[in-house]
Amino acid sequence: MLDRGRSNPINHQMVLDLANAIKDLETDKEVGGVIITGKPGFFSSGIDLMEAYDYNEEQVKQFWTDFLALPQALASFKKPLVAAISGHSPAGGCVIALCCDYRVMAEGQFIIGLNEIPVGIIVPDSIFNLYSFWLGQNKAYQYIMEGKLLTVAEALRDGLIDDMVTQEELMASAEKKIRAYMQMNRVTWSTSKLNLRKELIGKLNADQTENLTIMLKQWWAPATRKGLEMMIENLKAKSAKS
Amino acid sequence: MLDRGRSNPINHQMVLDLANAIKDLETDKEVGGVIITGKPGFFSSGIDLMEAYDYNEEQVKQFWTDFLALPQALASFKKPLVAAISGHSPAGGCVIALCCDYRVMAEGQFIIGLNEIPVGIIVPDSIFNLYSFWLGQNKAYQYIMEGKLLTVAEALRDGLIDDMVTQEELMASAEKKIRAYMQMNRVTWSTSKLNLRKELIGKLNADQTENLTIMLKQWWAPATRKGLEMMIENLKAKSAKS
Amino acid sequence: MLDRGRSNPINHQMVLDLANAIKDLETDKEVGGVIITGKPGFFSSGIDLMEAYDYNEEQVKQFWTDFLALPQALASFKKPLVAAISGHSPAGGCVIALCCDYRVMAEGQFIIGLNEIPVGIIVPDSIFNLYSFWLGQNKAYQYIMEGKLLTVAEALRDGLIDDMVTQEELMASAEKKIRAYMQMNRVTWSTSKLNLRKELIGKLNADQTENLTIMLKQWWAPATRKGLEMMIENLKAKSAKS
Repeated sequence: MLDRGRSNPINHQMVLDLANAIKDLETDKEVGGVIITGKPGFFSSGIDLMEAYDYNEEQVKQFWTDFLALPQALASFKKPLVAAISGHSPAGGCVIALCCDYRVMAEGQFIIGLNEIPVGIIVPDSIFNLYSFWLGQNKAYQYIMEGKLLTVAEALRDGLIDDMVTQEELMASAEKKIRAYMQMNRVTWSTSKLNLRKELIGKLNADQTENLTIMLKQWWAPATRKGLEMMIENLKAKSAKS
Repeated sequence: MLDRGRSNPINHQMVLDLANAIKDLETDKEVGGVIITGKPGFFSSGIDLMEAYDYNEEQVKQFWTDFLALPQALASFKKPLVAAISGHSPAGGCVIALCCDYRVMAEGQFIIGLNEIPVGIIVPDSIFNLYSFWLGQNKAYQYIMEGKLLTVAEALRDGLIDDMVTQEELMASAEKKIRAYMQMNRVTWSTSKLNLRKELIGKLNADQTENLTIMLKQWWAPATRKGLEMMIENLKAKSAKS
Repeated sequence: MLDRGRSNPINHQMVLDLANAIKDLETDKEVGGVIITGKPGFFSSGIDLMEAYDYNEEQVKQFWTDFLALPQALASFKKPLVAAISGHSPAGGCVIALCCDYRVMAEGQFIIGLNEIPVGIIVPDSIFNLYSFWLGQNKAYQYIMEGKLLTVAEALRDGLIDDMVTQEELMASAEKKIRAYMQMNRVTWSTSKLNLRKELIGKLNADQTENLTIMLKQWWAPATRKGLEMMIENLKAKSAKS
């Protein structure tokens, strides 16, 4: 379960914790499958921009390096991995969900999608490949290029999520699915999973150095910094009200 | 026409016969295009598990080697190739249909799809690429990982088949389509076909040694043998009733 | 704006002009984005078969070489590129539209699609990759192999176009979209665009020598020449009437 503050924003520590947890769960023989969930209202609000804004050059570099490595680790997880999306799931929150085998989302006024571009963050091809695996290239392209956030109903219609249930049914629904996966022979299921993801994982594992260099340069561009400042002001204002 | 017993199960001999037939039909100048069909009720029930269960180590290895080579041969066939799916078409039956240019299926309480995983058989990436060519990666992934068998209506909705007609209209419908293809200039049509399948054929032709090693190991695993025994008992019981 | 005769047929000069224009627009700092449009009734009728029929061997070779290089140039354009499809858009007209980020089309009895095969022209894999980027592989394959031309409503349903508006609203709609793209940070948007198209552009840039050799051989085949003659007769008869 993602558990960091009200909205589960992803900071560097959380990236490392998640990567470590998934490594442990993979080797733990007691664990047959894993459900990732958040809190009612928020699966994860994505990257913690308030914290990341204050990272220095070295910290930002390390943060993005580790964040881009996270989909590799999650997408290559050998056991069944189901996302029980308990609320909002933009940007980085959506990326985590995309790595899972199956996505069930709670009904409600929630949004999900990759809205990096309006925030000023460059989308690497690895993330596009992950998005288009589920959405197809057409919708993945159009949605990323306009920074679209989808409602739960839109996400279901477009195949970004596989099922929509009430908040109360969310965990039961995720468990039902993971049990169905676990009923299959584990070697057959797990080997087939990695076969089906072979091309995708290959793309996620491709060298990200060039992408990183460009992303970092753009991160420190005055326009991006200004955009982030405005967003953070907004978040603080919202946070003060709620 | 597939013709082996009531349900056209695929044994080693049938794989070899089909591969040879397709080679002969390709060079036969009298042949403009080919329709593959089965019997009313069964297109093909897939791999003949009863026979394959009794293959020895060398026979199983040769069988799987030749079976994995079949999609390469069928998918690279230069002339129009249409599947007239006359009935049930799970697993191996579905694979044969997937190699064709066009699939028309008879209405009825039939099923079609790749249900290898519940049977304990590993799905290689080549078969996933073939499935996702028609279904898209999302549905291909979800359906394989849960071993889903689709109704005829579902197959039509998802693009797994291109048309659904009555059993009586089946051959006429397949012939109509193949004649439309044959009206085009043969060189233009055939060269374009191979162009459009270039990436797919490249993936089907990729070395399968690693896949085979893992599949064979899993074939002989006690859990798989036990699963096959139970399936065969079921098939025998059904067969005795009918 | 495409402007050549009544129906904007594409001859060699137009290919060169378009390639040059796009190069100039890319470096022109006053230009934030580009809309490609045609005339009411015709976006572009595709390759100018009447003129191309009369090209000699060297001219045909040069024409096809430059025409196959056009999608590379258009698809790699760094700025927002929107197609305002003002009317018919078969074959080459459709190819130009496919390179854009977004396609809006005028309502009306217009057709759009890749109908090369019935005309006797071989479709290279690069064009299939472009088509299937938007349509998915299933529809792209079926439509190309039967030479299907889509109505505007069908094109919208299948994602070949992104919006359908009246002829009067066409330019305003294209401008609205391009302004939305231009509101984003230019470096972020443009870098992301090229990231998302990385694989597609790689395929478009692949060496076309082998394709060209086969296409040219088929261009000069008596059957193709005869087909072109019949088409040209038809076009002249139509043209005389209108």
